[in-house]
Amino acid sequence: MTQRARVHCFTVTKDGFGTGEGQSLERPFGHGNPAELMSWIGATANWVNRTEPGGTRGLDDYIARDFTYNIGAEIMGRNKFGPVRGPWLDHEWQGWWGDEPPFHTPVFVLTHHPRPSFTLSDTTFHFLDATPHEALERAKAAADGRDVRIGGGVATVREFLDADLIDEMHIAVAPFELGSGGRLWESPDELTDRFHLERVPRPSGFVHHFFWRR
Amino acid sequence: MTQRARVHCFTVTKDGFGTGEGQSLERPFGHGNPAELMSWIGATANWVNRTEPGGTRGLDDYIARDFTYNIGAEIMGRNKFGPVRGPWLDHEWQGWWGDEPPFHTPVFVLTHHPRPSFTLSDTTFHFLDATPHEALERAKAAADGRDVRIGGGVATVREFLDADLIDEMHIAVAPFELGSGGRLWESPDELTDRFHLERVPRPSGFVHHFFWRR
Repeated sequence: MTQRARVHCFTVTKDGFGTGEGQSLERPFGHGNPAELMSWIGATANWVNRTEPGGTRGLDDYIARDFTYNIGAEIMGRNKFGPVRGPWLDHEWQGWWGDEPPFHTPVFVLTHHPRPSFTLSDTTFHFLDATPHEALERAKAAADGRDVRIGGGVATVREFLDADLIDEMHIAVAPFELGSGGRLWESPDELTDRFHLERVPRPSGFVHHFFWRR
Repeated sequence: MTQRARVHCFTVTKDGFGTGEGQSLERPFGHGNPAELMSWIGATANWVNRTEPGGTRGLDDYIARDFTYNIGAEIMGRNKFGPVRGPWLDHEWQGWWGDEPPFHTPVFVLTHHPRPSFTLSDTTFHFLDATPHEALERAKAAADGRDVRIGGGVATVREFLDADLIDEMHIAVAPFELGSGGRLWESPDELTDRFHLERVPRPSGFVHHFFWRR
């Protein structure tokens, strides 16, 4: 089986922004509201961050629980890992996710400022100063034959798209705009020369976009 | 985590039939055409019976590959297991699936004529003369904490519905009728007193029906 590079459950606004401006510890999505942006998945029973019972078990839940399907490693950008910029002053910051990160695989964090690997529960974070090609090679080797999730944020997904390294992508498009921030695209149609695109609109106003290589 | 009883990728015609009349070795779905009935899933990249590369990787593929998600055992009726009726004349028949059955878990076959268990690759078939309650208890014990798939055919799904043992169900409804055979329902709306129902129509004419308990 060929190992694939996949994007899953990544959400952007109608005008293509995945994060707002001014990311900080208090506002990981800058002026964007993550609860609003992620409301389609926050409502589902199998959402990785769900803490209370309940939640829907329809189509959105299938997509939510597919997050882990055949995934053996994740690559993320430093801005997904945390709000600190530039050289690390210390290594106290260990991500947004507490003691039980929802990845359960090796995670490779792209950064110009590598630091030692560390493990939280069954997730080990590695830090790489590498090109997308090099990072994907490392992640595939660590993925034990399974696929690699390109986890975001926007700049990282964009870098891997520009390097033509992504095989498959699910992007949820929200029914509202953000105006500025980190932008994935002007329009999803920019990608249809390389990818099949299937749109599945939901009653919530969100539209699932499924891309796979032509 | 509570173990759930789930139906997945089960397909019926517009008039509610899951199989036609006259099942035989040559025609496992009787006068129904399984290639036509299963065309929605046959087109997907992750269909368990796919032998050639290719296939779509949009929404239908997400549903196809969810077939194994958190499943630890399957329960099926004898008519899904094979075309033989009544007492076994011998034990030569080992299912429709060849040496590599697509289950990869214990499978419990409901029959009034039990026979010894056997293993093909990583699937072990057990034979039970049991009520739905008893069978579900056995399957849950074997599922190692994971869920149990109620695999069909129609009569088996119907029995588990009537015993109110099903937690979650995905049924694909085909855009054509079959007129007679094994019937799941007159209309999916019969179940909405007990289940949430979400309908997701596809360009192919198939309509996914997602049910989960109220």
